[in-house]
Amino acid sequence: MTDTLINGEIKNTISVLDRGLQYGDGLFETMAVCNGKISLWDAHWERLTYGCKQLSMPLPDKETIEKEIDLICDKNKDQIKYIIKLIVTRGEAERGYRFSNEQNITRILTSHSWPDYPKEYQTEGVAVRYCETTLSENKRLAGIKHLNRLEQILARNEWDSDEFQEGLMLTISGDVVDGTMSNIFAVKDNIIFTPSLTLCGVAGVMRKTIINLSKDLGISIFEKTFTKSELEQADELFLTNSLFGIWSVRKIAKTRFTKVGEVTKKLQEELVKIRCK
Amino acid sequence: MTDTLINGEIKNTISVLDRGLQYGDGLFETMAVCNGKISLWDAHWERLTYGCKQLSMPLPDKETIEKEIDLICDKNKDQIKYIIKLIVTRGEAERGYRFSNEQNITRILTSHSWPDYPKEYQTEGVAVRYCETTLSENKRLAGIKHLNRLEQILARNEWDSDEFQEGLMLTISGDVVDGTMSNIFAVKDNIIFTPSLTLCGVAGVMRKTIINLSKDLGISIFEKTFTKSELEQADELFLTNSLFGIWSVRKIAKTRFTKVGEVTKKLQEELVKIRCK
Repeated sequence: MTDTLINGEIKNTISVLDRGLQYGDGLFETMAVCNGKISLWDAHWERLTYGCKQLSMPLPDKETIEKEIDLICDKNKDQIKYIIKLIVTRGEAERGYRFSNEQNITRILTSHSWPDYPKEYQTEGVAVRYCETTLSENKRLAGIKHLNRLEQILARNEWDSDEFQEGLMLTISGDVVDGTMSNIFAVKDNIIFTPSLTLCGVAGVMRKTIINLSKDLGISIFEKTFTKSELEQADELFLTNSLFGIWSVRKIAKTRFTKVGEVTKKLQEELVKIRCK
Repeated sequence: MTDTLINGEIKNTISVLDRGLQYGDGLFETMAVCNGKISLWDAHWERLTYGCKQLSMPLPDKETIEKEIDLICDKNKDQIKYIIKLIVTRGEAERGYRFSNEQNITRILTSHSWPDYPKEYQTEGVAVRYCETTLSENKRLAGIKHLNRLEQILARNEWDSDEFQEGLMLTISGDVVDGTMSNIFAVKDNIIFTPSLTLCGVAGVMRKTIINLSKDLGISIFEKTFTKSELEQADELFLTNSLFGIWSVRKIAKTRFTKVGEVTKKLQEELVKIRCK
Protein backbone atom coordinates (compact mmCIF):
# COMPACT_ATOMS: atom_id res chain seq x y z
CA MET A 1 0.00 0.00 0.00
CA THR A 2 1.20 3.52 -0.70
CA ASP A 3 -1.19 6.45 -0.76
CA THR A 4 0.64 9.70 -1.39
CA LEU A 5 -0.43 13.29 -0.89
CA ILE A 6 1.94 16.10 -1.81
CA ASN A 7 0.80 19.51 -0.62
CA GLY A 8 -2.69 18.03 -0.54
CA GLU A 9 -2.59 16.69 -4.09
CA ILE A 10 -2.80 12.99 -4.91
CA LYS A 11 0.49 12.38 -6.69
CA ASN A 12 3.68 10.49 -5.96
CA THR A 13 6.51 12.49 -7.50
CA ILE A 14 8.30 15.69 -6.52
CA SER A 15 10.48 18.11 -8.44
CA VAL A 16 14.19 17.21 -8.63
CA LEU A 17 14.82 20.79 -7.51
CA ASP A 18 13.20 20.15 -4.12
CA ARG A 19 15.74 20.82 -1.39
CA GLY A 20 14.68 17.61 0.32
CA LEU A 21 16.36 15.71 -2.51
CA GLN A 22 19.12 18.21 -3.26
CA TYR A 23 20.47 18.45 0.29
CA GLY A 24 18.32 16.38 2.68
CA ASP A 25 16.92 19.75 3.77
CA GLY A 26 13.89 18.71 5.80
CA LEU A 27 12.35 16.60 8.54
CA PHE A 28 10.18 13.51 8.89
CA GLU A 29 7.89 11.65 11.28
CA THR A 30 7.04 7.95 11.00
CA MET A 31 3.73 7.41 12.76
CA ALA A 32 1.66 4.40 13.79
CA VAL A 33 -2.02 4.46 12.83
CA CYS A 34 -4.22 2.35 15.14
CA ASN A 35 -7.96 2.08 14.50
CA GLY A 36 -7.99 5.06 12.17
CA LYS A 37 -6.08 7.42 14.48
CA ILE A 38 -2.45 8.54 14.59
CA SER A 39 -0.90 7.22 17.77
CA LEU A 40 0.92 9.89 19.85
CA TRP A 41 0.16 12.64 17.32
CA ASP A 42 0.78 15.48 19.80
CA ALA A 43 4.27 14.19 20.55
CA HIS A 44 5.06 13.81 16.82
CA TRP A 45 3.84 17.34 16.19
CA GLU A 46 5.90 18.67 19.07
CA ARG A 47 9.10 17.10 17.70
CA LEU A 48 8.36 18.42 14.20
CA THR A 49 7.82 21.88 15.68
CA TYR A 50 11.18 21.73 17.45
CA GLY A 51 12.85 20.44 14.26
CA CYS A 52 11.48 23.35 12.21
CA LYS A 53 12.79 25.76 14.82
CA GLN A 54 16.26 24.19 14.76
CA LEU A 55 16.38 24.29 10.93
CA SER A 56 14.89 27.83 10.70
CA MET A 57 12.09 26.37 8.60
CA PRO A 58 8.48 27.60 8.74
CA LEU A 59 6.20 25.18 10.56
CA PRO A 60 3.48 23.89 8.21
CA ASP A 61 -0.13 24.55 9.16
CA LYS A 62 -1.22 21.89 11.67
CA GLU A 63 -4.88 21.85 10.66
CA THR A 64 -4.01 21.39 7.00
CA ILE A 65 -1.83 18.39 7.80
CA GLU A 66 -4.48 16.94 10.09
CA LYS A 67 -7.04 17.21 7.30
CA GLU A 68 -4.66 15.49 4.88
CA ILE A 69 -4.02 12.72 7.41
CA ASP A 70 -7.79 12.29 7.78
CA LEU A 71 -8.08 11.85 4.01
CA ILE A 72 -5.58 8.99 4.08
CA CYS A 73 -7.24 7.44 7.14
CA ASP A 74 -10.64 7.59 5.45
CA LYS A 75 -9.25 5.76 2.47
CA ASN A 76 -7.80 3.00 4.67
CA LYS A 77 -10.76 2.38 6.97
CA ASP A 78 -10.43 -1.38 6.54
CA GLN A 79 -6.85 -1.39 7.84
CA ILE A 80 -6.48 -1.85 11.61
CA LYS A 81 -2.82 -0.89 11.77
CA TYR A 82 -0.53 0.81 9.29
CA ILE A 83 2.03 3.60 9.04
CA ILE A 84 1.72 7.19 7.88
CA LYS A 85 4.99 8.94 7.17
CA LEU A 86 5.16 12.73 7.00
CA ILE A 87 8.06 14.47 5.28
CA VAL A 88 8.41 18.25 5.36
CA THR A 89 11.10 19.83 3.16
CA ARG A 90 12.25 23.40 2.56
CA GLY A 91 10.66 23.14 -0.89
CA GLU A 92 11.78 23.79 -4.43
CA ALA A 93 14.55 26.32 -4.99
CA GLU A 94 17.46 27.46 -7.13
CA ARG A 95 20.81 25.69 -6.74
CA GLY A 96 22.82 26.70 -3.64
CA TYR A 97 22.75 26.17 0.14
CA ARG A 98 21.35 29.63 0.83
CA PHE A 99 17.61 29.76 1.37
CA SER A 100 15.30 32.72 0.97
CA ASN A 101 13.02 34.05 3.67
CA GLU A 102 10.03 33.01 1.60
CA GLN A 103 10.30 29.26 1.87
CA ASN A 104 7.58 27.23 0.19
CA ILE A 105 7.59 24.15 2.36
CA THR A 106 6.73 20.82 0.70
CA ARG A 107 4.44 18.47 2.69
CA ILE A 108 4.57 14.79 1.75
CA LEU A 109 2.32 12.17 3.33
CA THR A 110 2.67 8.48 2.47
CA SER A 111 1.00 5.39 3.90
CA HIS A 112 2.84 2.11 4.38
CA SER A 113 1.96 -1.41 5.51
CA TRP A 114 2.49 -2.33 9.15
CA PRO A 115 5.91 -4.00 9.58
CA ASP A 116 5.68 -7.69 10.31
CA TYR A 117 7.75 -7.92 13.53
CA PRO A 118 7.48 -11.27 15.34
CA LYS A 119 5.57 -11.08 18.66
CA GLU A 120 8.57 -12.73 20.41
CA TYR A 121 10.64 -9.55 20.02
CA GLN A 122 8.41 -8.10 22.72
CA THR A 123 7.80 -11.16 24.84
CA GLU A 124 11.23 -12.78 24.65
CA GLY A 125 13.47 -9.95 23.52
CA VAL A 126 15.85 -9.16 20.67
CA ALA A 127 19.58 -9.51 20.08
CA VAL A 128 21.55 -6.29 19.63
CA ARG A 129 25.02 -5.56 18.28
CA TYR A 130 27.31 -2.53 18.38
CA CYS A 131 27.83 -0.70 15.06
CA GLU A 132 31.19 0.50 13.83
CA THR A 133 29.68 3.52 12.09
CA THR A 134 29.84 6.32 14.64
CA LEU A 135 27.35 9.11 15.25
CA SER A 136 28.76 12.57 14.70
CA GLU A 137 28.02 15.39 17.12
CA ASN A 138 26.29 18.65 16.28
CA LYS A 139 24.11 20.25 18.92
CA ARG A 140 22.03 22.11 16.35
CA LEU A 141 20.94 18.82 14.73
CA ALA A 142 20.81 16.66 17.88
CA GLY A 143 17.46 15.14 18.78
CA ILE A 144 15.56 16.19 15.65
CA LYS A 145 14.43 13.77 12.94
CA HIS A 146 16.00 15.41 9.91
CA LEU A 147 16.49 13.95 6.45
CA ASN A 148 20.29 13.54 6.73
CA ARG A 149 20.36 9.84 7.57
CA LEU A 150 23.54 8.46 5.97
CA GLU A 151 25.02 7.47 9.34
CA GLN A 152 21.98 5.36 10.24
CA ILE A 153 22.00 3.82 6.75
CA LEU A 154 25.66 2.83 6.96
CA ALA A 155 25.18 1.47 10.49
CA ARG A 156 22.06 -0.55 9.59
CA ASN A 157 23.83 -2.13 6.65
CA GLU A 158 26.80 -3.39 8.63
CA TRP A 159 24.90 -6.66 9.19
CA ASP A 160 22.59 -8.60 6.95
CA SER A 161 21.66 -11.69 8.99
CA ASP A 162 18.63 -12.19 11.22
CA GLU A 163 20.94 -12.88 14.14
CA PHE A 164 20.57 -9.28 15.31
CA GLN A 165 17.42 -7.15 15.28
CA GLU A 166 19.07 -3.81 16.03
CA GLY A 167 22.48 -2.15 16.15
CA LEU A 168 23.56 0.45 18.69
CA MET A 169 25.48 3.51 17.59
CA LEU A 170 28.26 5.20 19.58
CA THR A 171 30.09 8.51 19.41
CA ILE A 172 33.79 8.60 18.45
CA SER A 173 34.57 8.79 22.18
CA GLY A 174 32.66 5.56 22.84
CA ASP A 175 29.41 6.76 24.40
CA VAL A 176 26.34 4.71 23.49
CA VAL A 177 23.69 7.01 21.97
CA ASP A 178 20.84 5.10 20.34
CA GLY A 179 19.92 2.32 17.92
CA THR A 180 19.75 2.80 14.15
CA MET A 181 15.95 3.02 14.45
CA SER A 182 15.28 3.04 18.19
CA ASN A 183 16.25 4.47 21.58
CA ILE A 184 17.79 2.41 24.37
CA PHE A 185 16.94 2.27 28.08
CA ALA A 186 18.76 0.48 30.91
CA VAL A 187 17.30 -0.52 34.28
CA LYS A 188 19.61 -0.82 37.31
CA ASP A 189 18.25 -1.34 40.84
CA ASN A 190 14.78 -0.31 39.65
CA ILE A 191 16.03 3.04 38.30
CA ILE A 192 15.79 3.69 34.55
CA PHE A 193 18.58 5.39 32.58
CA THR A 194 18.67 6.46 28.94
CA PRO A 195 21.44 8.23 26.98
CA SER A 196 21.14 12.01 26.90
CA LEU A 197 20.85 13.32 23.35
CA THR A 198 22.21 16.84 23.57
CA LEU A 199 24.94 16.34 20.94
CA CYS A 200 23.56 13.61 18.68
CA GLY A 201 20.90 10.94 18.29
CA VAL A 202 17.19 11.08 17.54
CA ALA A 203 14.86 11.91 20.44
CA GLY A 204 12.19 9.32 19.67
CA VAL A 205 8.54 10.06 20.29
CA MET A 206 8.29 6.68 22.05
CA ARG A 207 11.35 7.56 24.14
CA LYS A 208 9.57 10.64 25.39
CA THR A 209 6.38 8.67 26.02
CA ILE A 210 8.32 6.12 28.12
CA ILE A 211 10.05 8.87 30.11
CA ASN A 212 6.66 10.43 30.95
CA LEU A 213 5.06 7.05 31.62
CA SER A 214 7.84 6.06 34.03
CA LYS A 215 7.43 9.30 35.94
CA ASP A 216 3.66 8.75 36.12
CA LEU A 217 4.30 5.28 37.53
CA GLY A 218 6.66 6.68 40.16
CA ILE A 219 9.76 5.03 38.66
CA SER A 220 12.91 7.19 38.76
CA ILE A 221 14.31 7.89 35.30
CA PHE A 222 17.47 9.81 34.34
CA GLU A 223 19.31 10.87 31.20
CA LYS A 224 23.07 10.33 31.30
CA THR A 225 26.07 9.36 29.16
CA PHE A 226 26.66 5.63 28.82
CA THR A 227 29.60 3.36 28.11
CA LYS A 228 29.20 -0.13 26.67
CA SER A 229 30.21 -1.78 29.93
CA GLU A 230 27.68 0.21 31.98
CA LEU A 231 25.02 -0.94 29.54
CA GLU A 232 26.09 -4.57 29.83
CA GLN A 233 25.96 -4.42 33.64
CA ALA A 234 22.30 -3.33 33.67
CA ASP A 235 19.60 -5.54 35.17
CA GLU A 236 17.30 -4.98 32.19
CA LEU A 237 17.66 -3.36 28.78
CA PHE A 238 14.95 -2.37 26.35
CA LEU A 239 14.55 -0.56 23.04
CA THR A 240 11.73 1.77 22.03
CA ASN A 241 10.32 3.16 18.80
CA SER A 242 7.01 4.60 17.61
CA LEU A 243 6.08 1.49 15.68
CA PHE A 244 7.11 -1.47 17.81
CA GLY A 245 6.71 0.22 21.21
CA ILE A 246 9.04 -1.63 23.61
CA TRP A 247 11.33 -4.53 22.75
CA SER A 248 13.14 -6.22 25.58
CA VAL A 249 16.85 -6.93 24.90
CA ARG A 250 17.83 -10.58 25.49
CA LYS A 251 21.39 -10.29 24.23
CA ILE A 252 23.82 -7.44 23.66
CA ALA A 253 27.12 -8.39 22.02
CA LYS A 254 28.13 -11.32 24.31
CA THR A 255 26.02 -10.43 27.35
CA ARG A 256 22.77 -12.36 27.79
CA PHE A 257 19.69 -11.44 29.83
CA THR A 258 17.78 -14.55 30.88
CA LYS A 259 14.24 -13.13 30.88
CA VAL A 260 12.21 -10.01 30.26
CA GLY A 261 12.70 -7.83 33.37
CA GLU A 262 9.91 -6.71 35.68
CA VAL A 263 10.25 -2.98 34.92
CA THR A 264 10.25 -3.65 31.16
CA LYS A 265 7.16 -5.85 31.51
CA LYS A 266 5.35 -3.24 33.59
CA LEU A 267 6.05 -0.52 31.02
CA GLN A 268 4.92 -2.78 28.16
CA GLU A 269 1.62 -3.41 29.95
CA GLU A 270 1.04 0.26 30.73
CA LEU A 271 2.01 1.39 27.23
CA VAL A 272 -0.73 -0.71 25.65
CA LYS A 273 -3.29 1.27 27.69
CA ILE A 274 -2.21 4.71 26.44
CA ARG A 275 -1.06 3.90 22.94
CA CYS A 276 -4.09 3.16 20.84
CA LYS A 277 -6.90 4.73 22.79
CA MET B 1 17.57 27.23 -17.76
CA THR B 2 16.98 23.76 -16.41
CA ASP B 3 17.24 20.71 -18.63
CA THR B 4 16.66 17.55 -16.67
CA LEU B 5 17.43 13.93 -17.50
CA ILE B 6 16.47 11.20 -15.04
CA ASN B 7 17.92 7.81 -15.90
CA GLY B 8 18.20 9.12 -19.44
CA GLU B 9 14.57 10.25 -19.68
CA ILE B 10 13.58 13.89 -20.16
CA LYS B 11 11.52 14.56 -17.04
CA ASN B 12 11.92 16.67 -13.93
CA THR B 13 10.28 14.72 -11.12
CA ILE B 14 11.28 11.69 -9.08
CA SER B 15 9.33 9.28 -6.90
CA VAL B 16 8.82 10.36 -3.28
CA LEU B 17 10.07 6.88 -2.36
CA ASP B 18 13.53 7.63 -3.78
CA ARG B 19 16.10 7.24 -1.00
CA GLY B 20 17.72 10.49 -2.13
CA LEU B 21 14.67 12.31 -0.77
CA GLN B 22 13.84 9.92 2.08
CA TYR B 23 17.30 9.96 3.68
CA GLY B 24 19.72 12.03 1.60
CA ASP B 25 21.09 8.67 0.48
CA GLY B 26 23.28 9.66 -2.46
CA LEU B 27 26.02 11.83 -3.92
CA PHE B 28 26.37 14.81 -6.22
CA GLU B 29 28.83 16.69 -8.43
CA THR B 30 28.44 20.31 -9.50
CA MET B 31 30.39 20.78 -12.71
CA ALA B 32 31.41 23.73 -14.86
CA VAL B 33 30.74 23.42 -18.59
CA CYS B 34 33.09 25.52 -20.74
CA ASN B 35 32.73 25.57 -24.52
CA GLY B 36 30.56 22.46 -24.54
CA LYS B 37 32.84 20.35 -22.35
CA ILE B 38 32.73 19.43 -18.65
CA SER B 39 35.72 20.99 -16.97
CA LEU B 40 37.80 18.54 -14.86
CA TRP B 41 35.48 15.62 -15.63
CA ASP B 42 38.05 12.98 -14.68
CA ALA B 43 38.46 14.47 -11.22
CA HIS B 44 34.68 14.68 -10.74
CA TRP B 45 34.32 11.06 -11.79
CA GLU B 46 37.10 10.00 -9.45
CA ARG B 47 35.42 11.67 -6.46
CA LEU B 48 32.07 10.12 -7.38
CA THR B 49 33.75 6.72 -7.60
CA TYR B 50 35.26 7.15 -4.14
CA GLY B 51 31.89 8.34 -2.79
CA CYS B 52 30.09 5.26 -4.14
CA LYS B 53 32.71 3.05 -2.50
CA GLN B 54 32.32 4.81 0.85
CA LEU B 55 28.51 4.51 0.71
CA SER B 56 28.57 0.88 -0.59
CA MET B 57 26.62 2.06 -3.60
CA PRO B 58 27.08 0.68 -7.13
CA LEU B 59 28.96 3.07 -9.41
CA PRO B 60 26.75 4.08 -12.35
CA ASP B 61 27.99 3.28 -15.84
CA LYS B 62 30.44 6.01 -16.91
CA GLU B 63 29.70 5.80 -20.62
CA THR B 64 25.97 6.10 -20.03
CA ILE B 65 26.44 9.26 -17.98
CA GLU B 66 28.86 10.70 -20.54
CA LYS B 67 26.27 10.14 -23.28
CA GLU B 68 23.60 11.84 -21.17
CA ILE B 69 25.91 14.79 -20.51
CA ASP B 70 26.56 15.02 -24.26
CA LEU B 71 22.80 15.23 -24.85
CA ILE B 72 22.53 18.22 -22.50
CA CYS B 73 25.62 19.85 -24.03
CA ASP B 74 24.20 19.42 -27.54
CA LYS B 75 21.02 21.16 -26.46
CA ASN B 76 22.96 24.10 -25.01
CA LYS B 77 25.45 24.69 -27.82
CA ASP B 78 24.79 28.43 -27.74
CA GLN B 79 25.82 28.71 -24.08
CA ILE B 80 29.52 29.40 -23.48
CA LYS B 81 29.46 28.66 -19.77
CA TYR B 82 26.91 26.93 -17.57
CA ILE B 83 26.62 24.27 -14.88
CA ILE B 84 25.68 20.60 -15.06
CA LYS B 85 24.81 18.99 -11.76
CA LEU B 86 24.83 15.22 -11.41
CA ILE B 87 22.99 13.54 -8.53
CA VAL B 88 23.24 9.80 -7.97
CA THR B 89 20.92 8.24 -5.36
CA ARG B 90 20.43 4.71 -4.07
CA GLY B 91 17.10 4.69 -5.91
CA GLU B 92 13.53 3.90 -5.01
CA ALA B 93 12.88 1.48 -2.15
CA GLU B 94 10.60 0.38 0.66
CA ARG B 95 10.65 2.34 3.92
CA GLY B 96 13.64 1.62 6.21
CA TYR B 97 17.37 2.36 6.39
CA ARG B 98 18.35 -1.12 5.24
CA PHE B 99 19.18 -1.43 1.56
CA SER B 100 19.10 -4.52 -0.61
CA ASN B 101 22.02 -5.81 -2.61
CA GLU B 102 20.15 -5.03 -5.80
CA GLN B 103 20.19 -1.27 -5.72
CA ASN B 104 18.62 0.51 -8.66
CA ILE B 105 20.62 3.70 -8.67
CA THR B 106 18.85 6.90 -9.84
CA ARG B 107 20.88 9.22 -12.12
CA ILE B 108 19.75 12.84 -12.25
CA LEU B 109 21.36 15.43 -14.53
CA THR B 110 20.28 19.07 -14.45
CA SER B 111 21.66 22.15 -16.17
CA HIS B 112 21.85 25.55 -14.48
CA SER B 113 22.86 29.07 -15.47
CA TRP B 114 26.39 30.22 -14.74
CA PRO B 115 26.47 32.10 -11.40
CA ASP B 116 27.02 35.80 -11.79
CA TYR B 117 30.08 36.31 -9.52
CA PRO B 118 31.71 39.75 -9.84
CA LYS B 119 35.16 39.62 -11.48
CA GLU B 120 36.62 41.53 -8.47
CA TYR B 121 36.23 38.45 -6.27
CA GLN B 122 39.15 37.04 -8.20
CA THR B 123 41.15 40.17 -8.83
CA GLU B 124 40.64 41.95 -5.51
CA GLY B 125 39.49 39.20 -3.19
CA VAL B 126 36.52 38.37 -1.00
CA ALA B 127 35.60 38.87 2.65
CA VAL B 128 35.19 35.75 4.75
CA ARG B 129 33.62 35.13 8.16
CA TYR B 130 33.70 32.23 10.61
CA CYS B 131 30.47 30.25 10.99
CA GLU B 132 29.04 29.15 14.31
CA THR B 133 27.57 25.96 12.85
CA THR B 134 30.25 23.33 13.37
CA LEU B 135 31.20 20.45 11.06
CA SER B 136 30.71 17.04 12.65
CA GLU B 137 33.31 14.34 12.25
CA ASN B 138 32.79 10.94 10.65
CA LYS B 139 35.67 9.39 8.75
CA ARG B 140 33.35 7.28 6.60
CA LEU B 141 31.66 10.41 5.21
CA ALA B 142 34.68 12.73 5.19
CA GLY B 143 35.77 14.10 1.83
CA ILE B 144 32.84 12.80 -0.22
CA LYS B 145 30.11 15.00 -1.68
CA HIS B 146 27.05 13.28 -0.25
CA LEU B 147 23.49 14.57 -0.10
CA ASN B 148 23.47 15.22 3.70
CA ARG B 149 24.10 18.95 3.61
CA LEU B 150 22.22 20.39 6.58
CA GLU B 151 25.39 21.64 8.24
CA GLN B 152 26.41 23.64 5.16
CA ILE B 153 22.85 24.99 4.84
CA LEU B 154 22.73 26.17 8.45
CA ALA B 155 26.21 27.68 8.14
CA ARG B 156 25.45 29.49 4.87
CA ASN B 157 22.32 30.98 6.33
CA GLU B 158 24.01 32.52 9.35
CA TRP B 159 24.51 35.71 7.32
CA ASP B 160 22.36 37.40 4.76
CA SER B 161 24.28 40.54 3.80
CA ASP B 162 26.72 41.00 0.92
CA GLU B 163 29.42 41.98 3.39
CA PHE B 164 30.81 38.43 3.29
CA GLN B 165 31.13 36.15 0.30
CA GLU B 166 31.91 32.95 2.16
CA GLY B 167 31.87 31.47 5.67
CA LEU B 168 34.46 29.09 7.06
CA MET B 169 33.37 26.06 9.07
CA LEU B 170 35.23 24.64 12.06
CA THR B 171 35.09 21.41 14.06
CA ILE B 172 33.87 21.48 17.69
CA SER B 173 37.53 21.53 18.74
CA GLY B 174 38.16 24.68 16.71
CA ASP B 175 40.03 23.40 13.66
CA VAL B 176 39.24 25.24 10.43
CA VAL B 177 38.05 22.73 7.80
CA ASP B 178 36.54 24.39 4.73
CA GLY B 179 34.06 26.98 3.50
CA THR B 180 30.35 26.28 3.08
CA MET B 181 30.94 25.87 -0.68
CA SER B 182 34.70 26.02 -1.06
CA ASN B 183 38.08 24.85 0.22
CA ILE B 184 40.65 27.12 1.84
CA PHE B 185 44.40 27.44 1.25
CA ALA B 186 46.98 29.47 3.17
CA VAL B 187 50.39 30.57 1.90
CA LYS B 188 53.22 31.17 4.42
CA ASP B 189 56.82 31.80 3.30
CA ASN B 190 55.96 30.53 -0.20
CA ILE B 191 54.68 27.19 1.13
CA ILE B 192 51.00 26.32 0.67
CA PHE B 193 48.91 24.67 3.39
CA THR B 194 45.34 23.40 3.28
CA PRO B 195 43.28 21.67 6.00
CA SER B 196 43.41 17.88 5.91
CA LEU B 197 39.97 16.37 5.42
CA THR B 198 40.25 12.93 6.99
CA LEU B 199 37.42 13.44 9.51
CA CYS B 200 35.12 15.95 7.80
CA GLY B 201 34.79 18.45 4.98
CA VAL B 202 34.35 18.08 1.23
CA ALA B 203 37.44 17.29 -0.83
CA GLY B 204 36.75 19.69 -3.68
CA VAL B 205 37.67 18.81 -7.23
CA MET B 206 39.27 22.26 -7.54
CA ARG B 207 41.16 21.65 -4.28
CA LYS B 208 42.71 18.56 -5.81
CA THR B 209 43.46 20.39 -9.03
CA ILE B 210 45.28 23.14 -7.12
CA ILE B 211 47.28 20.61 -5.08
CA ASN B 212 48.44 18.92 -8.30
CA LEU B 213 49.06 22.23 -10.05
CA SER B 214 51.21 23.50 -7.15
CA LYS B 215 53.31 20.35 -7.24
CA ASP B 216 53.74 20.71 -11.01
CA LEU B 217 54.93 24.28 -10.47
CA GLY B 218 57.43 23.15 -7.84
CA ILE B 219 55.62 24.88 -4.96
CA SER B 220 55.60 22.90 -1.69
CA ILE B 221 52.08 22.09 -0.51
CA PHE B 222 50.98 20.29 2.65
CA GLU B 223 47.77 19.15 4.32
CA LYS B 224 47.55 19.89 8.05
CA THR B 225 45.15 20.90 10.83
CA PHE B 226 44.58 24.64 11.18
CA THR B 227 43.53 27.01 13.92
CA LYS B 228 41.95 30.38 13.22
CA SER B 229 45.03 32.28 14.37
CA GLU B 230 47.36 30.25 12.14
CA LEU B 231 45.09 31.14 9.24
CA GLU B 232 45.10 34.82 10.10
CA GLN B 233 48.90 34.88 10.25
CA ALA B 234 49.27 33.60 6.68
CA ASP B 235 50.86 35.76 3.98
CA GLU B 236 48.09 34.93 1.50
CA LEU B 237 44.74 33.14 1.71
CA PHE B 238 42.59 31.85 -1.12
CA LEU B 239 39.39 29.85 -1.64
CA THR B 240 38.73 27.32 -4.38
CA ASN B 241 35.70 25.68 -5.95
CA SER B 242 34.83 24.01 -9.25
CA LEU B 243 32.82 26.96 -10.48
CA PHE B 244 34.73 30.08 -9.48
CA GLY B 245 38.21 28.57 -9.54
CA ILE B 246 40.34 30.67 -7.16
CA TRP B 247 39.15 33.62 -5.07
CA SER B 248 41.74 35.56 -3.18
CA VAL B 249 40.75 36.43 0.43
CA ARG B 250 41.09 40.15 1.23
CA LYS B 251 39.57 39.97 4.72
CA ILE B 252 38.97 37.23 7.24
CA ALA B 253 37.05 38.25 10.37
CA LYS B 254 39.10 41.36 11.37
CA THR B 255 42.33 40.53 9.52
CA ARG B 256 42.91 42.31 6.22
CA PHE B 257 45.22 41.36 3.36
CA THR B 258 46.26 44.40 1.36
CA LYS B 259 46.58 42.81 -2.09
CA VAL B 260 46.28 39.55 -3.98
CA GLY B 261 49.44 37.57 -3.16
CA GLU B 262 52.04 36.44 -5.69
CA VAL B 263 51.43 32.70 -5.19
CA THR B 264 47.66 33.16 -5.52
CA LYS B 265 48.14 35.22 -8.68
CA LYS B 266 50.48 32.64 -10.19
CA LEU B 267 48.00 29.82 -9.52
CA GLN B 268 45.12 31.84 -10.98
CA GLU B 269 47.12 32.40 -14.17
CA GLU B 270 48.12 28.75 -14.49
CA LEU B 271 44.62 27.48 -13.71
CA VAL B 272 43.16 29.33 -16.69
CA LYS B 273 45.47 27.35 -18.97
CA ILE B 274 44.32 23.92 -17.81
CA ARG B 275 40.70 24.55 -16.95
CA CYS B 276 38.80 25.01 -20.16
CA LYS B 277 41.00 23.41 -22.71
